[in-house]
Amino acid sequence: MPKSEFRRNLITKRWVVIAAERSRRPLELRHMSVLEQKNPDICPFCPGNEAQTPPTILSYAKDDGSGWKIRVFANKYRALSIEGKLDKQKRGIFRNMNGMGAHELIVTTPEHKTLYELSDSEMNDTLWACKDRMLDLKKAVDEGEPKIYYIIIFGNQGETAGGSQKHGHLQLIGLPIAPEDSWKELSNCEEYWDEENECLFCNLTAQESEEKTRIVSENDNFLSICDYSGKFPFETWILPRNHRPLFEDSTDKNIRALAEVAMDTLRRIGKALNYPPFNLYFHNTPLHDRNHDRYYHFNIKIIPRLSQPAGFELGTGFYINPIIPEDAARILREVKL
Amino acid sequence: MPKSEFRRNLITKRWVVIAAERSRRPLELRHMSVLEQKNPDICPFCPGNEAQTPPTILSYAKDDGSGWKIRVFANKYRALSIEGKLDKQKRGIFRNMNGMGAHELIVTTPEHKTLYELSDSEMNDTLWACKDRMLDLKKAVDEGEPKIYYIIIFGNQGETAGGSQKHGHLQLIGLPIAPEDSWKELSNCEEYWDEENECLFCNLTAQESEEKTRIVSENDNFLSICDYSGKFPFETWILPRNHRPLFEDSTDKNIRALAEVAMDTLRRIGKALNYPPFNLYFHNTPLHDRNHDRYYHFNIKIIPRLSQPAGFELGTGFYINPIIPEDAARILREVKL
Repeated sequence: MPKSEFRRNLITKRWVVIAAERSRRPLELRHMSVLEQKNPDICPFCPGNEAQTPPTILSYAKDDGSGWKIRVFANKYRALSIEGKLDKQKRGIFRNMNGMGAHELIVTTPEHKTLYELSDSEMNDTLWACKDRMLDLKKAVDEGEPKIYYIIIFGNQGETAGGSQKHGHLQLIGLPIAPEDSWKELSNCEEYWDEENECLFCNLTAQESEEKTRIVSENDNFLSICDYSGKFPFETWILPRNHRPLFEDSTDKNIRALAEVAMDTLRRIGKALNYPPFNLYFHNTPLHDRNHDRYYHFNIKIIPRLSQPAGFELGTGFYINPIIPEDAARILREVKL
Repeated sequence: MPKSEFRRNLITKRWVVIAAERSRRPLELRHMSVLEQKNPDICPFCPGNEAQTPPTILSYAKDDGSGWKIRVFANKYRALSIEGKLDKQKRGIFRNMNGMGAHELIVTTPEHKTLYELSDSEMNDTLWACKDRMLDLKKAVDEGEPKIYYIIIFGNQGETAGGSQKHGHLQLIGLPIAPEDSWKELSNCEEYWDEENECLFCNLTAQESEEKTRIVSENDNFLSICDYSGKFPFETWILPRNHRPLFEDSTDKNIRALAEVAMDTLRRIGKALNYPPFNLYFHNTPLHDRNHDRYYHFNIKIIPRLSQPAGFELGTGFYINPIIPEDAARILREVKL
């Protein structure tokens, strides 16, 4: 590979500069391990402190009945409100509407530990909770309220990744509109379908399985890869092997397989890179719009926060990734767990 | 205003959640003043240490001849290379090309201080250096090499804004393609032109001048505003009052007026918010494509880094801004300098 290369894949259609030379810069790859994040005096997510957070929406009991193992509630500092009617306005060149939607918090374990430290079984329960909440919101939308078009599930671990609590949790936000970047992936895949009559995600999975150089972890049902044109160093995507457009349609077996690949991937990232702050998010098809099922697969993207987007990235939407994705994948693959 | 509101303007066409309730979160607005950033043992940008950086491309001498006041050189850790021919390739669903382009560094003062601390006259010299470099690269492109389509000038001050050096500097990157987000603004403005036969930036400036609630600083030629649908808290745009598509066409008088508004704005942000890390970038029309001159104004965007984009923002391109822009503008306007 030359000193630097522009790359894009057809899913995001974003050009990224893979600039191997820049990884020599003095400041790269410095961070505090999230395992060392200061513990709060009282963790609002630990059992016994439920009164510090809004009422429980959903919880799963431990097998021995000694308390909850998963707990979901509305985000205390929520960005969106589920009540009211959608009201759009315009004034000159400005547009606004009230902030309708859902904003929930999913505590992934009763133990005070990070997402890196979940067991496969805890991740399995977490994914089930995500599925249950999506199906429940889908039903509510069917019945008329709230007006949710798209649900995004995401996690922030570590302060520099926007995670204010160390205790492992995910968040769910339901939006009345399609968010721009998720929508762009859907429409790029639609364009490819129109031209090729093939599913771009099926082709991506096939090409990655054949080239093998970017695979991090895999089992019969899922694989994780360092994306060919990842915007961030060690950016990793988890993909279903088969054509699966909707996360919430996952079977018991599929959720177990997804939990296994997700945790194997997170453990490799943690061990290789000293447990960096990270974000993860689920990309899915819209809640009720089934037009996209022919050409999209739900997927999970994991972004270790080893560097910050700076002026160039914020100003252009164009990212400079200082680590060659094939090198990143090899490093993660070779971790001994 | 309700607890939260979705907003967009027609230039970026991005929906943003203005979520006033979230600013109550414990972690918001914590940062170290960039004035307190640790000084390096040897600053490569200070006079006397020029040998630590690549050769000078452009410099302005001090009036008394006692050394340089502005110095430009190729970035030592450059993302792009100016030599070679553009070579595009495809492999399955992947696309790549070699990383052609320019990457330069503009040291804005011989003194070891931050961008916040520049005098109006130092900012004036800096803007002249930006103009000179753009005109020089434009000429080179006219003569055939390198293949640059779009130039972005940006600055990163403070480590969490990606600025590895405290000593004030800007960077210039020339790209062979149009970067996605800058391109999107151009095409949104084109769409508006096609529909309304009016320049969207002229209308924005008129509406802001009339409403006055988002103005931070102004003089006869420029104004700065907290953008109605700013993605980040205290995001501030500097706009020419009149129809000015190209930064590099600025007259001496205009550059002086721009330096004045830029420094007044930066000083207000610094004093009000304890000198937070920030990014700034210039949005301009493409170097040689004059189709956009009817409907675009060059502008500078300043992003104080008070919070980090997290999973939701990275996953959706949808931003949550916890500070109402009208409140932010009032706070900045009321700063006593």
